[in-house]
Amino acid sequence: MNNKQVLKIVKIGGKLIEHEKKLSEFLLDFAKLSEPKILIHGGGNMATEIAGRLGYETHMVDGRRITDANSIQVITMVYGGLISKNIVAKLQGLDCNAIGLCGADGKSIVSSKRPVKDIDFGFVGDIENINQKFITSLLEQGIIPVFSAISYSDSGHLLNTNGDSVAAEIAKAMSENYSVELYYCFEKKGVLTDIEDEKSLIEVLDSVKYDELKKQKLIHSGMLPKLHNCFSALEHGVENISLGDHELLKDGSLKTVIIK
Amino acid sequence: MNNKQVLKIVKIGGKLIEHEKKLSEFLLDFAKLSEPKILIHGGGNMATEIAGRLGYETHMVDGRRITDANSIQVITMVYGGLISKNIVAKLQGLDCNAIGLCGADGKSIVSSKRPVKDIDFGFVGDIENINQKFITSLLEQGIIPVFSAISYSDSGHLLNTNGDSVAAEIAKAMSENYSVELYYCFEKKGVLTDIEDEKSLIEVLDSVKYDELKKQKLIHSGMLPKLHNCFSALEHGVENISLGDHELLKDGSLKTVIIK
Repeated sequence: MNNKQVLKIVKIGGKLIEHEKKLSEFLLDFAKLSEPKILIHGGGNMATEIAGRLGYETHMVDGRRITDANSIQVITMVYGGLISKNIVAKLQGLDCNAIGLCGADGKSIVSSKRPVKDIDFGFVGDIENINQKFITSLLEQGIIPVFSAISYSDSGHLLNTNGDSVAAEIAKAMSENYSVELYYCFEKKGVLTDIEDEKSLIEVLDSVKYDELKKQKLIHSGMLPKLHNCFSALEHGVENISLGDHELLKDGSLKTVIIK
Repeated sequence: MNNKQVLKIVKIGGKLIEHEKKLSEFLLDFAKLSEPKILIHGGGNMATEIAGRLGYETHMVDGRRITDANSIQVITMVYGGLISKNIVAKLQGLDCNAIGLCGADGKSIVSSKRPVKDIDFGFVGDIENINQKFITSLLEQGIIPVFSAISYSDSGHLLNTNGDSVAAEIAKAMSENYSVELYYCFEKKGVLTDIEDEKSLIEVLDSVKYDELKKQKLIHSGMLPKLHNCFSALEHGVENISLGDHELLKDGSLKTVIIK
């Protein structure tokens, strides 16, 4: 037990952002939360589409984007501008005083450019520091930070950064002074053992079960790093984590709850 | 005489933003200013270029952009994302703790959609309110606001807004608590009576001379609303206004100083 104030940190994933009706429904639920809150968004699919229309090819390796000089410009336009400012405008329309930020703003998310090993991921950052003090000062003014998945390196570069990791790292850092609840909203009801069957939802997942499922190869691709982020966040002070679809913030929604 | 703290508000215009070397030189001078400061930028030419590459036509009437639904999305991407976040990253690299905002962020610039008279300008806003309290709270934390020329209407819409007007309105609002100096940086040394001849620079311009020059039709197109903004700002408490090129912030630069 502790007496820290609850802080809700919510990540919304790519496909949800493109679905206007689901996004609006989600933002309405988010705006209604009475606790201090933070939103994190990506926007990979939309970036790929705009890049294509601008004549840039998108290169992926094992489902991960190679962020060349053109890609980081498109990501900056799409995540940092188009998606961020439209979400902020919608939230303001719902009387939720939001602010759209990337990691360079107020030096909020500092990262280092990923070193080149087998693959050169390009302008991709691994998070080193979250500016907890700045984020707290916004929350204390009743301002709701909306972060796009872009970090910043001290050398003055914007770096593409995994949105799930941004959410987890902000959650860990803010746990020092808040009782943090972390939510990952995406296109599924939660962790499924059969991705085609929503009835295969795992309602409670602990690390023992997680290891079992990995061994049985029932969890793969994007879900692996997402769950890795979840268990790491639980180890570093985050109180409560759940995964689900755009209805995740509603009471009694179907979801996966992650426990140690 | 007053004892208010100096606040420097600097607007940089379209062509300067596209010129990488001049922009870097300008940002270096801006970062060095020891007083509290605010930067405002547009980016019309870059928006027109990206719109063209995305297959959108740009419609202009009397040099003014008609902002249809596609245009406001492009402007949001280009001003609010690409230009804003790149400027912020560069300023952070110069040890200037900047934050990139549009009018929806923290409800900082509230406007109303321009009513349709002879021309329907589309998603264009006329400024109604500047959130002085929020801007002041950032300045007091040593955070430098970088505003893109996008405002926000209470109905939840992003609206394209003239960058010179954004700068003037922020300057007027902030004059209540600061001694405001307003700078307009663009591609010329200042107000010229012959646009092709830098030697025709007017070093000091007052409202009497301004009226004369207008009568002689020596001031026209984009310069008219810019100067209208300047004299309006002087009437509403702004202390000091100057116009010049990317070197305007250097000591002893050639410029036009506007006085009542």
